[in-house]
Amino acid sequence: MSDNAGKQTPSRVSFIGLGVMGYPMAGHLAGSGYQVSVYNRTRAKAQKWVAEHGGQSAESPAAVAVEAQIVFTCVGNDDDLRAVTTGPDGAFEAMAPGAIFVDHTTASAKVARELAAAGAERGITFLDAPVSGGEAGAQKGILTVMVGGEPEAFERARPAIESYARSVGLMGPSGSGQLTKMVNQICLAGLLQSLAEGLDFAQRAGLDVEQVLAVISKGASQSWQMENRGVTMHRDEFDFGFAVDWMRKDFGLCLDEARRNGASLPVAALVDQFYARIQARGGSRWDTSSLIRLLRDN
Amino acid sequence: MSDNAGKQTPSRVSFIGLGVMGYPMAGHLAGSGYQVSVYNRTRAKAQKWVAEHGGQSAESPAAVAVEAQIVFTCVGNDDDLRAVTTGPDGAFEAMAPGAIFVDHTTASAKVARELAAAGAERGITFLDAPVSGGEAGAQKGILTVMVGGEPEAFERARPAIESYARSVGLMGPSGSGQLTKMVNQICLAGLLQSLAEGLDFAQRAGLDVEQVLAVISKGASQSWQMENRGVTMHRDEFDFGFAVDWMRKDFGLCLDEARRNGASLPVAALVDQFYARIQARGGSRWDTSSLIRLLRDN
Repeated sequence: MSDNAGKQTPSRVSFIGLGVMGYPMAGHLAGSGYQVSVYNRTRAKAQKWVAEHGGQSAESPAAVAVEAQIVFTCVGNDDDLRAVTTGPDGAFEAMAPGAIFVDHTTASAKVARELAAAGAERGITFLDAPVSGGEAGAQKGILTVMVGGEPEAFERARPAIESYARSVGLMGPSGSGQLTKMVNQICLAGLLQSLAEGLDFAQRAGLDVEQVLAVISKGASQSWQMENRGVTMHRDEFDFGFAVDWMRKDFGLCLDEARRNGASLPVAALVDQFYARIQARGGSRWDTSSLIRLLRDN
Repeated sequence: MSDNAGKQTPSRVSFIGLGVMGYPMAGHLAGSGYQVSVYNRTRAKAQKWVAEHGGQSAESPAAVAVEAQIVFTCVGNDDDLRAVTTGPDGAFEAMAPGAIFVDHTTASAKVARELAAAGAERGITFLDAPVSGGEAGAQKGILTVMVGGEPEAFERARPAIESYARSVGLMGPSGSGQLTKMVNQICLAGLLQSLAEGLDFAQRAGLDVEQVLAVISKGASQSWQMENRGVTMHRDEFDFGFAVDWMRKDFGLCLDEARRNGASLPVAALVDQFYARIQARGGSRWDTSSLIRLLRDN
């Protein structure tokens, strides 16, 4: 491939993992004019996607990755990610030198560095690129994407990523995307718990909780969560959004990393334990704003 | 006083307590055309205010309250508030029946109800009206004001309050303003601590912290505090803003009220204890974002 060809906008891309995030993200790529091939562990979902968006589906991560200039993935965790990259029939064995692998999974910084090194041996550039914004953000194509890896590959992949993102930032070398996502989750822990404590207090104090939210969300306690989850928390609605199981997985990554870098996370660790109690109450799939249920009487 | 006179916009008002909040608030009243008389425990400050804004100063809360249609105050705590209202030479003994007392102190719901009852015996309407927005909000005249008390008095006082407020809400009967302010402070506790944990983690992880803030503040962990205190926290700047001593006073009110209404506040109680450690380190006057200092190595 000539230098010029290498700098052209990639047009053939692949997407591995059509879950609640990957499905609409791959759809935005197709909608932006990319030729998209897809792979999903459950085949029926890949066939449904092709029926909706065109393109083609393949039988394995390796098969879908052949000829792709960029391979995207969004899977469950470190192990799933290793399976679709360096595992048997994984994408890395099929990708051409010069191709880019963009991983949208929220995973460890360790696996990101490991796969960046494994990719480099084959001439493949690996970018860790976890997202924030949830299912709604993926559907609307307004995700925030935090990327770790080499600047040149980042710039080549960026136009494709922007088909489903409002904000894309290169945060540093491999692993930096994952570490940035961890910072985001750490910031959420106490924010969500204190919002829950505030709203439960408001109700016990006999206040009109929705009016309280309308007033205080104009001041120093304002947050995206207050504006987007305050009313639903008060109304006891948790059957949507970002599930408690996923948050616990992410907190596990944060607490592991903190053991390595020496950070102290007293409130994140405490709120992680509160989520364990939510899981025990059957709330694994409830939105993370469900912390308020532990404070209520019933 | 005829019905019509009672419904005219009050033009003669008084302000008791020219601290960092009261001084600019009284200034906005004068700037909006009200005839403002002021009282301050330290006389020099009242004289300075009169030199800047006109009007007149008086020798006691009682003296300043004579002839005022609305008397405002913003003092330190429940005891200060009792002293300037029902104490010797307090405002209540001098106020005319039909006048309104608007208290901007962050105080207990209990003292608000007590003074509303004491005022009612004299034909004075008491409104508890704590504010949010801090010194900068008072100077710019963009405070949030949470009011408890009677709707008729609220509507009469509202235009004057709006001279320094962007958002004014009647939250319910006496005490409701204070309870709403407590909800606001409870929501801040874990939000601030988790922001501190996140930024300390980011630094230990080797990330560019200001870039991380720029990216994640577009997502689900966004907050007013992240946008307005994130960078200064990272730069270790705490010589401004809302002081730790004031926050501990407010948390004391919240935790007392929670004992009465049965609310559980695990993270607010924990963060209150972290602030005790900040005070022990000499940080009584530091901004509440100084929690990050407990997480750093030095």
